[in-house]
This record gives sequence, C-alpha cells and structure tokens, in this order.
Amino acid sequence: MASERAFTRGLAQFFGRARGVRVGIGDDAAVVDNAATNSVLCCDPVVEGVHFTRTDPPALVGRKAVNRNLSDLAAMGALADWLLVSLVLPTRYPAAARQQLLQGIRSAARAGNCTVIGGDVATSRGPLVVTVTAVGHLPGRALVRSGARAGDTVHVTGPLGGSIHGHHLRFRPALREGVWLARQRAVTAAIDVSDGLLLDLATLLHTSGGLGAELDAAAIPIRPVVLWHARDRRTALRHALADGEDHVLLWTQKPRVVLARGGPLTGSARAPIGRVTRKPGLWLIHADGSRERLSPKGFEHRLR
Amino acid sequence: MASERAFTRGLAQFFGRARGVRVGIGDDAAVVDNAATNSVLCCDPVVEGVHFTRTDPPALVGRKAVNRNLSDLAAMGALADWLLVSLVLPTRYPAAARQQLLQGIRSAARAGNCTVIGGDVATSRGPLVVTVTAVGHLPGRALVRSGARAGDTVHVTGPLGGSIHGHHLRFRPALREGVWLARQRAVTAAIDVSDGLLLDLATLLHTSGGLGAELDAAAIPIRPVVLWHARDRRTALRHALADGEDHVLLWTQKPRVVLARGGPLTGSARAPIGRVTRKPGLWLIHADGSRERLSPKGFEHRLR
Repeated sequence: MASERAFTRGLAQFFGRARGVRVGIGDDAAVVDNAATNSVLCCDPVVEGVHFTRTDPPALVGRKAVNRNLSDLAAMGALADWLLVSLVLPTRYPAAARQQLLQGIRSAARAGNCTVIGGDVATSRGPLVVTVTAVGHLPGRALVRSGARAGDTVHVTGPLGGSIHGHHLRFRPALREGVWLARQRAVTAAIDVSDGLLLDLATLLHTSGGLGAELDAAAIPIRPVVLWHARDRRTALRHALADGEDHVLLWTQKPRVVLARGGPLTGSARAPIGRVTRKPGLWLIHADGSRERLSPKGFEHRLR
Repeated sequence: MASERAFTRGLAQFFGRARGVRVGIGDDAAVVDNAATNSVLCCDPVVEGVHFTRTDPPALVGRKAVNRNLSDLAAMGALADWLLVSLVLPTRYPAAARQQLLQGIRSAARAGNCTVIGGDVATSRGPLVVTVTAVGHLPGRALVRSGARAGDTVHVTGPLGGSIHGHHLRFRPALREGVWLARQRAVTAAIDVSDGLLLDLATLLHTSGGLGAELDAAAIPIRPVVLWHARDRRTALRHALADGEDHVLLWTQKPRVVLARGGPLTGSARAPIGRVTRKPGLWLIHADGSRERLSPKGFEHRLR
C-alpha cells in the first residue's frame, strides 16, 4: 500500500518538467507561461464499462483518455501544451495496472507534444474514471463548427467505422491535419468525429444554421476491419456512417477549391464525400443515383 | 428522456457568455483570450460515496466540486477565470437533480467570478463523478508550498475541524485572502487545507526542504460545531488538527513581521498558531508548556 502523498510525489518525476512550467506537479495548482494570447481548452472523461472494458490494457486506456482530448483540440486547429489528469481509481486497483495507465498517459502526451502538469487522484468503489483536461493554443484561426455554407463539399481525414475492433483505443489525434486545415482559407468548418459520422455531421450542420447534406455512398471511406467483419458492403457502409469513436476530422470547404499541395492529408482525404445543402436533412446518394433519407444515428449518452 | 446533444445545446445558454470567450460551449473545445501571460490550472474530482453522499443536495455537490478547485487556485494567490466541467451521471439520475447540480455549479462559478466554458457529459452505472478543472491567472507572484523557513510563524485563515457537519459542502474558497497574502512580502508559503491541518502542514514542511513545526494548542482555531459535538476540548482539538476539507489557507510568514493593515483577514487569522522548526516533526505545545509529538494524520486515499 502506498499513500496518496507518496504517490503524487513520485508523479512530478515520472511526468518530467517542461519549458514554460513555473510551478509543476506537487503544489495546489500548476503555473505555466502562456504560449500565446489565446488558450484552447477541453475536458473529457473515459469511464470503465462505457469507453473501455475491464480487460482492455490500462496503457491503452490512458492513451485513449489523452487522445480523445487531443482530437478535440485538433478539430479546432489547435496545438496541445498541457494536460491535467484526474484519476478515480477503484479500491483494489492493482499498482501494476496504475503504473501502466500512467505510462499510457505519458506516451500519448509525448506523442502529442504536451506535458502533464497536474491533476488529482481519488479512490472509490465505482468504476475507473480517467478525466483528462487538455489546454493548447491556436497558431492561426479557430476551426469552428459553425462556418459551413450550402454548396460546400464535405471531407474526412481518414476511414470510418468499426472502431470497436481496436481503433477506439489506438487512434492518433489528427493534430497536424487540424493545424494544416486551419491554414487553408477554403476550409469553412470542422468537427471531431467521435459519435459517428452522421451524428457529428448533423451537429456541424445544425450549428452552421440548420443546413443539410448529401453523402455519396461510393465515396465514404470504410475502415478495412469493417469490410472484413460485415456481411456485405451495404452493412459495412452503415457502420462507417454510424459507429462512434473514429476520431478523424470532418471538415467542409468551399466548392471547386483545390487545397494547397503537400501537407499531412492523404490523397483520399482530399476527395469529397458529399455536399452541404441549404435544405436540412441528410441524404445518401447511391451509385445508381437513387436517394436514401438518413437519420442522424450514432452514439449518444441517454439522459433522463 | 433528453439526448446528450439537446442537453449540451441548452448548456451554452444556461451558463451564459463571458467577455474574453471567443468560442464557448458547443464546439470541440473552448477558445479564450488569455487574461495574463501566465495560467494557473488545477483539476479535482468529487465522487459519490467519497466526497458526498447520495442524500446531499445536488446543488451543494455542484458547489463543492467548483469550490474545491477555486480553493486550490486561492492557495496559489490566483484569481479564477474559467471552469470546465466533466459530469459522469449515473443512468437514471433524475433530470431535476441534474438541473440542481448545474445550478450549484453556476452559482459557485459566479461567486468565484469565473465562467463555465466547456466540459463533457457521460452516463455510467457507477456513482456520480463531477470533475471540475479551474483555470485562472496570477495577478502577482505565486504562493508556493516550498518557501517556508525555520523560524517562520504558521497561520490559518479560519477555524478548523468538523467539516463533515456541513462545512465541506458550503465552504467559500479564500480567493480574496490568497491574492492579498501573495501581495505581502513576509508570506513565505501557503497551502489549501483539504486533507487536515497536520497532513497539509506536513506536506508544506516536506516541500520546503524537510522542516518541522510546533503548534500552540491554545491558538488552534476550532470550528464551533466541533466544540458542540465533541466530549471535551481535547477531543475537539484532535478534530481541528486532523479532519479534512476545511478549505482554509494555511500560510507561513517571516517571524516578527506584522502584515499590512486592512485586507480580508480576520483578527484571529493574524495570530500565529505555531512556528516552523529546523528539526523535522510536528509537536503540540500545551498551555502548561508540555510537548506532545504529533503524527501527520488526516485524510488520504489509500492506493495499492
């Protein structure tokens, strides 16, 4: 058994000290020099039984807890600077698992070029809850959800669906893509695809003033693992449209504009998957030209 | 039943919009203009069954979740600017309770002169977990834990003990006191008393290079409710020394220095409760001059 105090004392050394940190782990709060005149902030929990299972490797749970937040920063066109980590550990959570959890957090932080500067640890009889707060800054403009206009084309940075087969623990936040997209004037809006393409697209369109979209069935990029598992391409497409936790960026851009060459986008990400329409509603356009009305299905927490 | 999306859309209006917020609730992350060249950040969860019970009024749970963090900022000499709130709600948590929880969060934010700009909501089968991240800035220097020196006097901003009788839900963070103390050159170190006077004093002394302290039994301010409940003054004193969640500020200052007149400190807070010693260890000096060795007892989460 270790005391909370002994444990937190070790954390300062474990996470290391970064430039710009005036007061790090081990005081009442952290003090940092601001990297810019703005800050970009988000906070997301991962909960055992909801976002991961008891048998998932703790290192991947820690990684996911960090990367979910970095993916939100990426969708704003922000770079990450600092993380705060709040752990609610189940009583009897093994010390070895805790260590792996912390290692997962640290490597994801390093990969995202940011540093853990504070947080808290508590124990409870409930499930493991890891809540990460990410703080970053905008090197350029903010990529908001509200800028889409009728006629804009719709794009995603990578394939969709079947995240449950491992991607939801192992994805990489599209930080480089986000910063690059924010530099492209033609890009009008962006969102992190966390609840499923249809649901997040619907949110972006709602926030942009109540617009709609047509998606081209043949253009939706499907993650290969979905094609292996699904009965047919039609089923696979449903997964790509509605599965959650893809953590790719969905963006809209002005029609008939070619984005700058180079940059982090793959070739397929440059091809549009659909168009924004003035009329609300989501439609799927099949290869034969037939139109199918879609309802914005995906993952939502049900509240009373 | 409400969907998560409908719920979060309402939150932007509920929490309102403050100056300096470029992108508020409802996008992937919040974007704010920085109030200063530094940021002060902390993050603390409150968990049902640990920090509150199922029968505690949700508004007070929300208040506590905010004020624990503001108390940490206060202990740095910081002012609060922004809050992020992560809610893990039990499935079947009543809508009315959720509304009261949010109202408690909002009024504590207003009282602390800060604004909720983001966060997340999830549901789980586990207990209610409210994790607040507070971000503020230092108007002056940082009040760190590590500055105490042998010979300094020890002080607290208010009475101690018996927080379980209601204070732990209703305390006010000592934000004005913290900023004022940071302006006094004689003040050498400060800490938020959250785990009990002895434990937090021991942390401050450890962080200041392994010092000790003598406390004057007659000078420890005891919260009246403790005196009502305790068998005798001796028992009451034990509560004042070791109970957690007082959320007063403990500070040290150079000996024989009188702090500036005026300011937010009460008269009793100006009187020292003890002295820092070069030799490690905590001692209680009784009215008859006898010395009693104290062990740093208080509240700690036990980790494996």
